[in-house]
Amino acid sequence: MIIMKETTIKTIKEIESQKTIFIEGLPGIGLIGKLAAEHLIQELGAEKFAELYSPHFPHQALVKDDATVRLMKNKLYHARHEGVDFIILVGDTQPSPSNSFGHYEIVSKILEYLKKYDISIMFTLGGFSTGGEVVEHPKVLGAVSHEELVEEYKDVNISFRDDSGAAIVGASGLLLAMGREEGIRGMCLLGESPGYMYIDAKAAKSVLEVLSKILKLDIDMTALEERAEETESLIHKIQEMQRKSMSQNMPEMSKDLGYIR
Amino acid sequence: MIIMKETTIKTIKEIESQKTIFIEGLPGIGLIGKLAAEHLIQELGAEKFAELYSPHFPHQALVKDDATVRLMKNKLYHARHEGVDFIILVGDTQPSPSNSFGHYEIVSKILEYLKKYDISIMFTLGGFSTGGEVVEHPKVLGAVSHEELVEEYKDVNISFRDDSGAAIVGASGLLLAMGREEGIRGMCLLGESPGYMYIDAKAAKSVLEVLSKILKLDIDMTALEERAEETESLIHKIQEMQRKSMSQNMPEMSKDLGYIR
Amino acid sequence: MIIMKETTIKTIKEIESQKTIFIEGLPGIGLIGKLAAEHLIQELGAEKFAELYSPHFPHQALVKDDATVRLMKNKLYHARHEGVDFIILVGDTQPSPSNSFGHYEIVSKILEYLKKYDISIMFTLGGFSTGGEVVEHPKVLGAVSHEELVEEYKDVNISFRDDSGAAIVGASGLLLAMGREEGIRGMCLLGESPGYMYIDAKAAKSVLEVLSKILKLDIDMTALEERAEETESLIHKIQEMQRKSMSQNMPEMSKDLGYIR
Amino acid sequence: MIIMKETTIKTIKEIESQKTIFIEGLPGIGLIGKLAAEHLIQELGAEKFAELYSPHFPHQALVKDDATVRLMKNKLYHARHEGVDFIILVGDTQPSPSNSFGHYEIVSKILEYLKKYDISIMFTLGGFSTGGEVVEHPKVLGAVSHEELVEEYKDVNISFRDDSGAAIVGASGLLLAMGREEGIRGMCLLGESPGYMYIDAKAAKSVLEVLSKILKLDIDMTALEERAEETESLIHKIQEMQRKSMSQNMPEMSKDLGYIR
Repeated sequence: MIIMKETTIKTIKEIESQKTIFIEGLPGIGLIGKLAAEHLIQELGAEKFAELYSPHFPHQALVKDDATVRLMKNKLYHARHEGVDFIILVGDTQPSPSNSFGHYEIVSKILEYLKKYDISIMFTLGGFSTGGEVVEHPKVLGAVSHEELVEEYKDVNISFRDDSGAAIVGASGLLLAMGREEGIRGMCLLGESPGYMYIDAKAAKSVLEVLSKILKLDIDMTALEERAEETESLIHKIQEMQRKSMSQNMPEMSKDLGYIR
Repeated sequence: MIIMKETTIKTIKEIESQKTIFIEGLPGIGLIGKLAAEHLIQELGAEKFAELYSPHFPHQALVKDDATVRLMKNKLYHARHEGVDFIILVGDTQPSPSNSFGHYEIVSKILEYLKKYDISIMFTLGGFSTGGEVVEHPKVLGAVSHEELVEEYKDVNISFRDDSGAAIVGASGLLLAMGREEGIRGMCLLGESPGYMYIDAKAAKSVLEVLSKILKLDIDMTALEERAEETESLIHKIQEMQRKSMSQNMPEMSKDLGYIR
Repeated sequence: MIIMKETTIKTIKEIESQKTIFIEGLPGIGLIGKLAAEHLIQELGAEKFAELYSPHFPHQALVKDDATVRLMKNKLYHARHEGVDFIILVGDTQPSPSNSFGHYEIVSKILEYLKKYDISIMFTLGGFSTGGEVVEHPKVLGAVSHEELVEEYKDVNISFRDDSGAAIVGASGLLLAMGREEGIRGMCLLGESPGYMYIDAKAAKSVLEVLSKILKLDIDMTALEERAEETESLIHKIQEMQRKSMSQNMPEMSKDLGYIR
Repeated sequence: MIIMKETTIKTIKEIESQKTIFIEGLPGIGLIGKLAAEHLIQELGAEKFAELYSPHFPHQALVKDDATVRLMKNKLYHARHEGVDFIILVGDTQPSPSNSFGHYEIVSKILEYLKKYDISIMFTLGGFSTGGEVVEHPKVLGAVSHEELVEEYKDVNISFRDDSGAAIVGASGLLLAMGREEGIRGMCLLGESPGYMYIDAKAAKSVLEVLSKILKLDIDMTALEERAEETESLIHKIQEMQRKSMSQNMPEMSKDLGYIR
């Protein structure tokens, strides 16, 4: 692992997974995808089986509760639930928005790695910014790899708006569009959210409700709400630490907003 | 296709093309080149035969009318019109302006790919900004690969101004200058335009008028004008969506101005 | 050495080093790590045995007192002190904060190079910004590769704060976290400091006091204080030169704040 | 040449050159090095024998007086004058200041290419900004690869100031410092100049006077002064064109300040 010239996925534990349902929830708007996917990991009792490291991630170590450090990473979890295999992707970060090359490399490596697990369908989870407007009941917008999926999921509460010209930025968009090139069926579910600096558990809940309806999963949402509260309090702590901190050219210790747990 | 480490051109359909006239119209000032080239594709009934993907394009998926997504790409079209072969390059985007390396890579790959189609002459289409000044009858500025072309096309209404020190940025410039290194004759046609945030159908029409005079094509311009109106209305819709949206560090859904149809 | 396509470490002198204690002090907040590590080099009479060059360092030559120039570089020193081997890493610079790839490459190359020297423990030194607040007695914050180190060094005056979510940016963080992946035990020591534009000898002294207690070294601190004063006067001279200088697109001669001696 | 993945030097004409004096004058502060080197090319009747292209140069074509375009490039000239071989490097541009990697690659390629020409000494020419202060008689600052050169050229009017901590940015610095690693003796000559947006023929003249004294060349300076006036008028024309132009995301035609014929 020592020479990190490109994104690398390290298998921690060999798994068996067939006709896998793949779910992505990396950090993005309101941390919606991340919250939803981490909650699902907890509810399904999924186990980590692989880690992804990349020289396109921020060049920093994260400090954990026990004062140990670790690299920035993404993680792959596996669960078999009622005979169905799930692989769930979560993580600390995505490459910086100015580094398109890094985004393409990471998504390429993930799709290549997943080939052996026979992905039957992919769900990428994220947020859609309303531009600050707070919404009482966040809608869930959908985009698909193949047109028939719109018809297939018409009874689930997804808004397939005519958003011609819209773009889905980052892993949620690239995984779906590159996966489509490989013949993988998939859907992106985006929860409506006021914006970024806001851990949006309500939108995460909306997304997860849609997803669990699709997957016929019975998910207890109370833990998600508690989880969101914990996160919010951590964020407040971090923001307070940031006020005390000055961020300039060669920071040796700073805070990472995208990090939960 | 899965590992996207560099720009890749995927052939969709084998074509025969000899003494090919190559025309480029990628997004740029006023989307002039793009509008002109897309109109030409329609008028000539050209068919798509290849697609170009690049890790130097924005890391996002585009959402189409039917709620399906696709990667950002450039496209190559072919038409045989009155015994003459045309290859036309259009697309969603060019790499970001800070990524010179990506621009050089893409143009290199295109020239390499086109080698087998025996390019007899190349026309690159774009805009020239007047810096905000609206012009009633947009002039068309020309630059060439070989000096004799100035004499050859002196009867067409092209302004070969003494713009020593001027630069043609992006694919329109690089294709012409790198093609010249390969011995390919070519001309860049730039329509005068007030600037960027403006879909300039008038300038596109001027450019296409010059090009069709050179190529002795009879092009119906009414559709171009309608097309420009459609585009303008789409842009307004997108701008309205953007006002509602907030663009920060890790957007999951945003709009792409460079995208038409 | 002529083709610099990637980070390269040049061995100047072959050394023997066993069960090596590795110490890093590259430029960062308040130049704390750099000051502490350079002082240690002086006190231990360590000798330079290798140099690291990188195309990810600033593209400039440094002018020395005798009007000769040299490339930006990092340096590895070796000392055997009371039967114990030390390797100490110092240098002029780290890659720019926008170049994560460069940071990962350099740290990878260092860890790979050090493999033959059998690192028993690693100490990375740096600063932690209080955000401007001047502290009378700078605390030293610690982070570790393995949890048992917290217990092991509980009698030394290190603050293992609950900084969950904090990040250690640059070589100090990456060396520790990537070293951990290779099974190397290590600790990061960060001196509390008001911030960046300040050569913080007081914090460097705090860090070095903790380190020398851990390593049971008897270090004379007076030279460190003098050294800090010299540095501060050099910085003032540089700042004065900078006021007279204008920094724009293609500077041929400018100043490098990160450079001492 | 078609696939431009890295900097490439194309030999146009085979030359014989022994114990070569190598002189660099790429664009930088006040275009001082460029003016001086281009004047020397003219005075020595040097002939172009090689061209350097790079994907790290701006992604644009330059338009010449005759409306033909060409790629951005650097150029190598050769002259044999009174039995002495000269190789002179000039060009349109250097990579952008944020692209250190590109600077290192280009300088590496140049040094590698020059190996066969047996460089006996190297002179890199540039400017040193006074930060806006206009100087009546611009001094010439020197920096060297080897200390003995200071003694060797003590009778020439060079200021070897104690600028410890100063940096020489770009090709003038990197060529000298990387050349030194290859055992090439060299000197950097920097003319004092008020700053950047100013074509500084006076400083170029000072630099060339020092250089011609060192090289015992008899150079007519009147042409240099005329040349500077021409350049200044071109720059004014360009600036006027720029006022009319708007520079945003995807410019197709813009101006290049670093370009002189």
